[in-house]
Amino acid sequence: MPKCAITFQPSGRKIEVDRDENILEAAIAAGIHVNASCGGSGTCGKCKVKIVRGKTRSPQNPKLPKREFDRRYRLACITSCLSDLEVEIPIESQVDPSVLRLKREGRNLLSPRDIDQLVEGWEIDPAVFKRYVELNPPSLDDNVSDLPRLINALYKKYGIRGISTDFRVIMKLSRLLREADWKVTVTLVLTRKGYKLINVEPRNMVCENYSIVIDLGTTTVFGQLLNLNKAEVCGFPDGMGTFTLAEASDYNAQISYGEDVISRIVYSQRRGGLKKLQEVIISTINGIIENLLQMSGIRRDLISHLVIAGNTTMTHLFLGLDPKYIREDPYVPTANFIPPVRAVHLRVNLGDHVHTYIFPMVASYMGGDIVSGILGSGIFQREALTLYMDIGTNGEIVLGNKDWLISASCSAGPAFEGAGIKFGTRATRGAVERVNINPRTLEPMLLTIGRAKPIGICGTGLIDTVAELFQGGIIDQNGKFSRELDTDRVREGDDGYEYVLAWKEETGIKEDIVLTEIDIENLIRTKAAIYAGCKILLDSVGLGFQDVDQFIIAGGFGHYIDLDKAIFIGLLPEMETRKYLFVGNGSLLGARLLSFSKDLLRETERIAHMMTNLELSNNPSFMSEFVAAMFLPHTDASAFPGVSGRLHEYQKAKAAYAS
Amino acid sequence: MPKCAITFQPSGRKIEVDRDENILEAAIAAGIHVNASCGGSGTCGKCKVKIVRGKTRSPQNPKLPKREFDRRYRLACITSCLSDLEVEIPIESQVDPSVLRLKREGRNLLSPRDIDQLVEGWEIDPAVFKRYVELNPPSLDDNVSDLPRLINALYKKYGIRGISTDFRVIMKLSRLLREADWKVTVTLVLTRKGYKLINVEPRNMVCENYSIVIDLGTTTVFGQLLNLNKAEVCGFPDGMGTFTLAEASDYNAQISYGEDVISRIVYSQRRGGLKKLQEVIISTINGIIENLLQMSGIRRDLISHLVIAGNTTMTHLFLGLDPKYIREDPYVPTANFIPPVRAVHLRVNLGDHVHTYIFPMVASYMGGDIVSGILGSGIFQREALTLYMDIGTNGEIVLGNKDWLISASCSAGPAFEGAGIKFGTRATRGAVERVNINPRTLEPMLLTIGRAKPIGICGTGLIDTVAELFQGGIIDQNGKFSRELDTDRVREGDDGYEYVLAWKEETGIKEDIVLTEIDIENLIRTKAAIYAGCKILLDSVGLGFQDVDQFIIAGGFGHYIDLDKAIFIGLLPEMETRKYLFVGNGSLLGARLLSFSKDLLRETERIAHMMTNLELSNNPSFMSEFVAAMFLPHTDASAFPGVSGRLHEYQKAKAAYAS
Repeated sequence: MPKCAITFQPSGRKIEVDRDENILEAAIAAGIHVNASCGGSGTCGKCKVKIVRGKTRSPQNPKLPKREFDRRYRLACITSCLSDLEVEIPIESQVDPSVLRLKREGRNLLSPRDIDQLVEGWEIDPAVFKRYVELNPPSLDDNVSDLPRLINALYKKYGIRGISTDFRVIMKLSRLLREADWKVTVTLVLTRKGYKLINVEPRNMVCENYSIVIDLGTTTVFGQLLNLNKAEVCGFPDGMGTFTLAEASDYNAQISYGEDVISRIVYSQRRGGLKKLQEVIISTINGIIENLLQMSGIRRDLISHLVIAGNTTMTHLFLGLDPKYIREDPYVPTANFIPPVRAVHLRVNLGDHVHTYIFPMVASYMGGDIVSGILGSGIFQREALTLYMDIGTNGEIVLGNKDWLISASCSAGPAFEGAGIKFGTRATRGAVERVNINPRTLEPMLLTIGRAKPIGICGTGLIDTVAELFQGGIIDQNGKFSRELDTDRVREGDDGYEYVLAWKEETGIKEDIVLTEIDIENLIRTKAAIYAGCKILLDSVGLGFQDVDQFIIAGGFGHYIDLDKAIFIGLLPEMETRKYLFVGNGSLLGARLLSFSKDLLRETERIAHMMTNLELSNNPSFMSEFVAAMFLPHTDASAFPGVSGRLHEYQKAKAAYAS
Repeated sequence: MPKCAITFQPSGRKIEVDRDENILEAAIAAGIHVNASCGGSGTCGKCKVKIVRGKTRSPQNPKLPKREFDRRYRLACITSCLSDLEVEIPIESQVDPSVLRLKREGRNLLSPRDIDQLVEGWEIDPAVFKRYVELNPPSLDDNVSDLPRLINALYKKYGIRGISTDFRVIMKLSRLLREADWKVTVTLVLTRKGYKLINVEPRNMVCENYSIVIDLGTTTVFGQLLNLNKAEVCGFPDGMGTFTLAEASDYNAQISYGEDVISRIVYSQRRGGLKKLQEVIISTINGIIENLLQMSGIRRDLISHLVIAGNTTMTHLFLGLDPKYIREDPYVPTANFIPPVRAVHLRVNLGDHVHTYIFPMVASYMGGDIVSGILGSGIFQREALTLYMDIGTNGEIVLGNKDWLISASCSAGPAFEGAGIKFGTRATRGAVERVNINPRTLEPMLLTIGRAKPIGICGTGLIDTVAELFQGGIIDQNGKFSRELDTDRVREGDDGYEYVLAWKEETGIKEDIVLTEIDIENLIRTKAAIYAGCKILLDSVGLGFQDVDQFIIAGGFGHYIDLDKAIFIGLLPEMETRKYLFVGNGSLLGARLLSFSKDLLRETERIAHMMTNLELSNNPSFMSEFVAAMFLPHTDASAFPGVSGRLHEYQKAKAAYAS
């Protein structure tokens, strides 16, 4: 079967597919989001792409105007490839309309290239790098041994001193040098104690240096394959301007053993439990690596570095370290700084020279993923007082700037991932992600992921629903349902009062999908913990929300949040919209940068050392702040003047309408 | 079966045996030499020992005077143990009479304690050491992670900074700290780049720190188990004053694949050859380790360090490094400095925290065994100009003092190990080791090892025989037999002229044992190479033998050499006897010291860097010096005035007798 290589722009991701493959399916396989709400039937017209280069077969279609067709636009779902292609995904096809809407509302969404520039002044100068040398062959007059000959040549040519050598390199060195006619490329890694020679390859391979970075999440694992070569020396791979050659993700296979870190730790204490959990996360990572290699077409042995950023528990489980004491008072992890571990020792399927850099951790509930986020978002460089929040399965908050950093983890609970919510679900196909409730009829308008029949409510849908219920006066500031409404949407169910989002005949699960008072209480508890956490951090340094110059929201979930609604329910503090910045996966962000720059590797260690973690469970003020925040938006109305104003206006309008 | 522990003094070696075990057999099992030429029948009376402590059963025997019996002397071969014993081996039973005779002749033989004092100013302060700490358990107010808690405590208590940590320690740390109630002993190792934490044990184990040092010879492998604990802190083990708790040796099992390094390298190039050679040497080492552990009664997990000193080829084979290029012009080894390798990675059967220190090498034919010898003999500390020679399967020579060192390897060939000699043999039971030839009758008087029937001639016997033949005028200065002698001992055999050392009915092999002219030529070639090597080294710095302050002879073989006879044939230069020092196994000597002292570990690296190796095969003067030395004792008679004088006197006496 003939193959076509498709390169998607602007991400630069590449995939090889069979000739005649559908471009939408190729995009999905490459992990690229293209809108397509009709499921590929050519009826919604949303999956418009531009064929920059190459031959396709595609019918004309009423959803695509002739002038666009002539300019090489096509509907991806009805287009198949006939040659290698370069396909540009226009901005309106790239992301969800809901996100676009937020963007129009002034939200700060950054392009992939912009996002790497949150950190200033770095250049591609990776901690794991290659250098080419040609050695003088030994002679009777110059019979220095092979290894010192190589080390001396590296010093003479590149001025690199104090190189220590991995024993595996020594094992193969003599034969390789001679077979390569004394022309070789070495791979060096910067360690805390100088440079280490980890690999020697024949020929000049300096422009073949790649890394894989992994965000090791409790729920989801993301990976990227990065090009570590300087464009000015090596050119751009296939003429592209991106460093990311492939991207892949998967659920963390440990999910079967528990949704959150606590249940994983509990499982790890069973006989064989720790080993099992390590095995499955490694297999998830190996799966992602396979995908990355396949998509990028990069040979496995050209990957020089593996970088892992994860929370403390995930990091322990990945390494096979017993996480038992993480959840036992006084919550002490085994270690914060882990020396580089060979990938092969962990059974990660990469070359045996590859060292795994583990992002340093700060505390049991302040892990390498957050340190990575602080690195990637550039807070550590700036004067500006910044709040950094990562909302995922857990919620971590960091406050500070270039001089100091304090952090706290609020055991928010995974409500946003669907846990503790009767019809809660992760953000998968069919999950309700946007909700509007008509203030008069109290009827909802739902948007689901993939525009499929609803199967549950994901995090953004949950925030939307509660905000709409609250704004509509359907629930009060305590999150309790009004008993006096003229609608069959609000009713008393098995778990007390509830709101029916979808009737069973409309759903994909043949059940009414409802949001209960208990669900709402869980959400309020979660948002209260997050808000109280931010407040306590600020209090601890004598500052308030008004002093914050920037609020960075990380986490895939954060990306899709409706900022207005999040503020409306008091999940986020009321601040000028421009102060909010959404960076997406913060953990991956820092891991990328660390991979590119040895200076940033050093900064990472400094950040981890600089972060002071407050243990909230030990903080007497936290409980009172938490209780104060158990209200919509907050018991202190003065902290939310805008929300109070809107509520007031809305009640006036409602009263006018009723009268 | 009840057991008795027998401690032999002065070596302090200990062995556990069944009750009623014969003491001579116990001594043999413990690797202790006790004279016993009658094979244990109680008839030679040579195996006299003193029972210092404990109960034995032993008949009186005519060979043991009553007054000695009353003073608790016994013949070991007819004495059995009834309780734990302390047995002292008197000096006359300890070593061969031949060696004693040499000692009486003013030869410098050193006691084990003296020998460690060749190097001055060191104290027990090993590079691998243990420290005990009691940690404050973590609390909510002090929830530093486990590893930094331990590292901080080590800094506070001992001022040790910059400790890096082995991942295997991190793996077990959390559980171990808690199970040990936060009272633990750490094992630290000094590396080139600071300290590394390699083990943590519960409780205070600081006085349980041991090492094993191995001399990895081409023919024989020696091992010692050493007590690394300071006597003033830990007391002497079992009240002894020695650091050596056990000693064991075995033939290098690679012998089956070739006698010398070249044939081993050739074998390593076969399919699977390298792997096989590595396997067998590791199994030899593991066997020795088993013996050492058993003899000393030290638990395997208490061994903290393994030190290996071997020649370059043996070191390569031990590590599984391809030695191919060692024997190919320009004779380049893979590396001189090998980073520490985990013992378990080499399948050496020790705890998985044990790092193997590999003595650095200087060149393809100047290995870690010689660097170790230079360390152990203290040359690197002294002003005195010293020649150091190690005569084993190869012959290596080093010249220098504390400021400079030059070295050369003379491919002497393994004549002293029996190779190239028709009835040559290693120094095993039945090997002829001492020879006297009656100047009138030309009849020989032989002494064999173990006083058994002769089976061949070992190195010392070879030197003796040639010296006696030469002195007796049976061979001339070219090593050729006189054709005019009235004896059936000299005859023409299959390989030309030969001297019959033993008639077949007297031997253990039912053949006449002879020394042929070809044998003699091989010996002369060997001694010429060694002498010429020394000469070239001296020449290269503009010095002569008269400038040498000390000549140190290392190697097990050197130990038993008859100095007079070695000078007589021109193997060794004619110098005052007091300048010669015999240190025995030089390789083991340095390995011991390195194990005891981190300062000496640093000195080792300095020594290896300081040594300049001359490649003799590349040296135009070497061949002419070699040819000049192919004569008994040398073509330059003025270099051997004493020998010339003796020859002259002897010829006069003979002429007088004949007339």
